[in-house]
Amino acid sequence: MPQISQKGIDMPASPIRKLTPFADKAKQDGKKIYHLNIGQPDIETPEIMLNALKSVPFKVWAYTPSEGTASYRNKLAQYYNKLNYNIEPTDILVTNGGSEAIIFAMQSCLNPGEEVIIPEPFYANYNGFACSSDVVVKPIMSYIDNGFALPSISEFEKVITEKTKAIAICNPNNPTGYLYSRQELEALKELCLKHDLYLFSDEAYREFCYDGREFISPMHLEGLEDHVVVFDTVSKRYSACGARIGCLITKNKALYQTVLKFAQARLSPSLEGQIAAEAAVDTPDAYFTAVSEEYTARRDTLVSGLNAIEGVYCPNPGGAFYVVAKLPIDNADKFCQWMLEDFSHDNQTVMMAPATGFYSTEGAGLNEVRMAYVLNQSDLKNALICLEKALEVYPGRQV
Amino acid sequence: MPQISQKGIDMPASPIRKLTPFADKAKQDGKKIYHLNIGQPDIETPEIMLNALKSVPFKVWAYTPSEGTASYRNKLAQYYNKLNYNIEPTDILVTNGGSEAIIFAMQSCLNPGEEVIIPEPFYANYNGFACSSDVVVKPIMSYIDNGFALPSISEFEKVITEKTKAIAICNPNNPTGYLYSRQELEALKELCLKHDLYLFSDEAYREFCYDGREFISPMHLEGLEDHVVVFDTVSKRYSACGARIGCLITKNKALYQTVLKFAQARLSPSLEGQIAAEAAVDTPDAYFTAVSEEYTARRDTLVSGLNAIEGVYCPNPGGAFYVVAKLPIDNADKFCQWMLEDFSHDNQTVMMAPATGFYSTEGAGLNEVRMAYVLNQSDLKNALICLEKALEVYPGRQV
Repeated sequence: MPQISQKGIDMPASPIRKLTPFADKAKQDGKKIYHLNIGQPDIETPEIMLNALKSVPFKVWAYTPSEGTASYRNKLAQYYNKLNYNIEPTDILVTNGGSEAIIFAMQSCLNPGEEVIIPEPFYANYNGFACSSDVVVKPIMSYIDNGFALPSISEFEKVITEKTKAIAICNPNNPTGYLYSRQELEALKELCLKHDLYLFSDEAYREFCYDGREFISPMHLEGLEDHVVVFDTVSKRYSACGARIGCLITKNKALYQTVLKFAQARLSPSLEGQIAAEAAVDTPDAYFTAVSEEYTARRDTLVSGLNAIEGVYCPNPGGAFYVVAKLPIDNADKFCQWMLEDFSHDNQTVMMAPATGFYSTEGAGLNEVRMAYVLNQSDLKNALICLEKALEVYPGRQV
Repeated sequence: MPQISQKGIDMPASPIRKLTPFADKAKQDGKKIYHLNIGQPDIETPEIMLNALKSVPFKVWAYTPSEGTASYRNKLAQYYNKLNYNIEPTDILVTNGGSEAIIFAMQSCLNPGEEVIIPEPFYANYNGFACSSDVVVKPIMSYIDNGFALPSISEFEKVITEKTKAIAICNPNNPTGYLYSRQELEALKELCLKHDLYLFSDEAYREFCYDGREFISPMHLEGLEDHVVVFDTVSKRYSACGARIGCLITKNKALYQTVLKFAQARLSPSLEGQIAAEAAVDTPDAYFTAVSEEYTARRDTLVSGLNAIEGVYCPNPGGAFYVVAKLPIDNADKFCQWMLEDFSHDNQTVMMAPATGFYSTEGAGLNEVRMAYVLNQSDLKNALICLEKALEVYPGRQV
């Protein structure tokens, strides 16, 4: 039997999928499950995007340029420049989902064994991308008590070594929903300039900022042009996760040319995905207004509902569609599994993602769960009732 | 300015794209270029596939399972089992194009610095995938004089060391068009069993076998189940390069589970691509018959036309839609650039891929070019006239 590579052995399995067998079993047993565990929105994809997909004009389903079609990149540049990113189409490289953009950046910027600092909890797949790129993630702790704000710069300084080459943030944040302030980003800018680090900015949830709060990107910071790499995707913005169209943006020309070589090897992103994504840029503002109102209402329902349960604490996040909540439990992995295996209320239960999967530090987040508010309010309310009942009887309840 | 990684520096640029600036200039100058340089077929995508794309039923463009949808994998298994692959849907993992399948396999099977043996000339992007996976390609020479048949097993034995973990073939071959025989594959089987190596089989051109020749896959060889990894794609089979739907097939369960972890990190292949690719499996036989007749006629036109030019030699390949031809020239890179920059006949010229880009060994293939017969016969004939005229006046002509 030929070998499995060490990287293949080390590659982390998706923590969110650990519970899938228990969910499957619960379904077989006839339980209704409220899925708050994954970030697959239930919001409909804009019609303008689906219509473009359904009326693709080509007879030959051909490759596109490796960096993406000129027309899509032109259109995307307009979208970003409305947000004052001040970029050219040639700063944009279209990728197979946001995932590929992250892999390209890690491979292009960091040597094997070099480090990227990421505030934790963080999107679990960063671990997978780091493993497949031989890069080391150095976590620094953010805390639920201040809503998972950016750790202080002195905490970053403590872990910066010669091996540190990048800092990565996800803004608004998955899993915490935290929206970084201009002040926090300015502080990161100074740090990146001081130590000559890249600043990776995963902006998958850019369009999901609530309560009138302003989204600030490192792209808005002057003097950091050669350091900033933005990862983006149409997945959440247009509820088009299955289109697998993302992009990498950088004004650093040498880096762009490097990333392009990785892109050329895999030939091209999908043609039809780019056609649809280009059309999506013209999605009417009314779509985003309606989506934002819906998510705000859901967030309010979920956060206030959670905080009304005895022993539960959930900060009110400024963006994305996730919350991380602290529960009166011994162990989130056990609790989430127990919810599927051993609990039901009116034959219903809730599936959540244990926050442990989003922390790199062993033992962190043991009493926290991530919930995605991708269900309608009525379902969210039912899920909250389930959770409250469950916490009343959970054998591992902590005072 | 932050660093570029060593891997990013080492990553090879696509050799095919080196000539692009000269082609752009030639076009600006008003020259008509016959593009024989790339494998983008002009054949129309099957209607059944495009219709499925245009009638996707979803309202929410959602993620699919990381390994691909159950229905597409079921359908694909039927396709492969008609070819006697004897596989289960659970042996198939759907990828973003065939490219991603190759990257997943290299990362899952080989440790950094370990080696995969590939007969050269070979598909140039294998170098890119190897670089991004920290894997080393060990080339062994195949020769135009016997039509680029598999090198003898003793040649493989010479380069096998403790670091050797896999042998990769592309069958039918890009760039040579060579179709491997059952005997050759049986010999590779014994070699892989003897040294406990993986056998990677890139079968992108499986449907393109001519003159009634039989396609044999390592999947047909008994006793090699744990060693075989097939890479496939809808790109060429259905002229759907821009769909970016490929797959990896292996009966090795441990390997499959490893590859799945890489697939989970990048979430999913595209939904609409899988829907269209599933429909494409029902493409009527008449489509393939017509395509095969067209390619056979083109091949015959090209090969006989080339061999009729003084000093040119081109073997008659059994599959794919490429030939590698030997020309009476000093240097294929120079010649191909000269054709674009300094030559025209009736204001027309030909763009070809210098074969040097497909050899790893320095100096090999200097007088060879790859041509893709992806143009209609009338254009091919005109291209042949251009080439003949060019060879008459090329300053670097060799006797």
